[in-house]
Amino acid sequence: MQVYTVNKRCIVGSMAVRVSATPAEGTALRDRIIDAASKVFIEEGYESFSMRRVAQEVGCSQMAMYRHFANKEALTQHLCSELYSRFATKMNREIEAASDPREQLHRFIAALIRFATSYPDHYSLIFLERHTNPEENSEREQLGKEFIQKIHGIVRSLLDADTPDSVVQTKLRQLLTCLHGTAALLIAHPKAYGLTRQKALDDVEATFRGLLGY
Amino acid sequence: MQVYTVNKRCIVGSMAVRVSATPAEGTALRDRIIDAASKVFIEEGYESFSMRRVAQEVGCSQMAMYRHFANKEALTQHLCSELYSRFATKMNREIEAASDPREQLHRFIAALIRFATSYPDHYSLIFLERHTNPEENSEREQLGKEFIQKIHGIVRSLLDADTPDSVVQTKLRQLLTCLHGTAALLIAHPKAYGLTRQKALDDVEATFRGLLGY
Repeated sequence: MQVYTVNKRCIVGSMAVRVSATPAEGTALRDRIIDAASKVFIEEGYESFSMRRVAQEVGCSQMAMYRHFANKEALTQHLCSELYSRFATKMNREIEAASDPREQLHRFIAALIRFATSYPDHYSLIFLERHTNPEENSEREQLGKEFIQKIHGIVRSLLDADTPDSVVQTKLRQLLTCLHGTAALLIAHPKAYGLTRQKALDDVEATFRGLLGY
Repeated sequence: MQVYTVNKRCIVGSMAVRVSATPAEGTALRDRIIDAASKVFIEEGYESFSMRRVAQEVGCSQMAMYRHFANKEALTQHLCSELYSRFATKMNREIEAASDPREQLHRFIAALIRFATSYPDHYSLIFLERHTNPEENSEREQLGKEFIQKIHGIVRSLLDADTPDSVVQTKLRQLLTCLHGTAALLIAHPKAYGLTRQKALDDVEATFRGLLGY
């Protein structure tokens, strides 16, 4: 079971638990909204997720909700960005704890597949949906950029020192799209593609080895 | 510009045109709903798509709509299945018109990337969304199955005759997930991954060559 913690909140498996908050704080209601939204989103899925349902969970009016988040989309995006940010931080630590680049890639693959299967709705919203709000997109893409740069460094270290950067970039895209495609099909159409979590991991590892020649 | 035709309908680029229909037919309204829904879906995107909007386009009551489709989800699924079915038929023909298996794979890759960029909303709904209705899923998965079997045959023909089927299956999954991941990122996050349509095509071709050794 994965445990992600950040600020005042702690998400354990499929339960979002509010660890502490002072109701007098100006941000208290906002925090409570985020906690409740996270709980509804994870436990009941995106289909059931609505401003009304979250307000009910918080025990506040919908009007109060709208003072903090313009609409359902904004609140959803916030949740996804937060979870993605925690995930990226945690994964960075895991990767850095290994020294061999092959082991680093292995940890990266395992972490992303685990994230996708543990939080399929978040994964879909972060990586699969096309969003119309450029601000949300740019925040997400900034996070994604740092993340991609890290993997770029690992891929570079596995290739000959004189490999041109254009080749490194192409390999990187091939690896990321393969991993992403596998995760996407694993959560959306596992039967049609004969995919289990283990097969997904094995496939991606094999593709990485094939493309990087190790 | 791609032209797909089936039964009485003809979708040309971003325009859905009803080719013929006799209002007296029992299925006439249903056909009109499908045509109008297709037009709204393609021209205005999934966000604007609603039973009310389609009813307005058809010039019928929402009640009449519900006699043919239980809800927005059912109508959307119908559109996607229909487009996917036409796409699969057309692509099969294109693939069969080539005799070299490398050229067949090239046509397959190009057709899927073209489909994803021409109809990103359909592509998302068909391949990326997780659907809760098992009936819709099974219809879609049946179509997908035939499709996957075709590519399986091509992949097998490119590998040594004594390659065990488990290896062929693994290669097939690796190829399909790579293609799917590329298409998905191309339509959702092209900037973050430095993807253009041409780069997407080149990447996938390179991955296929790498994995199949040709």
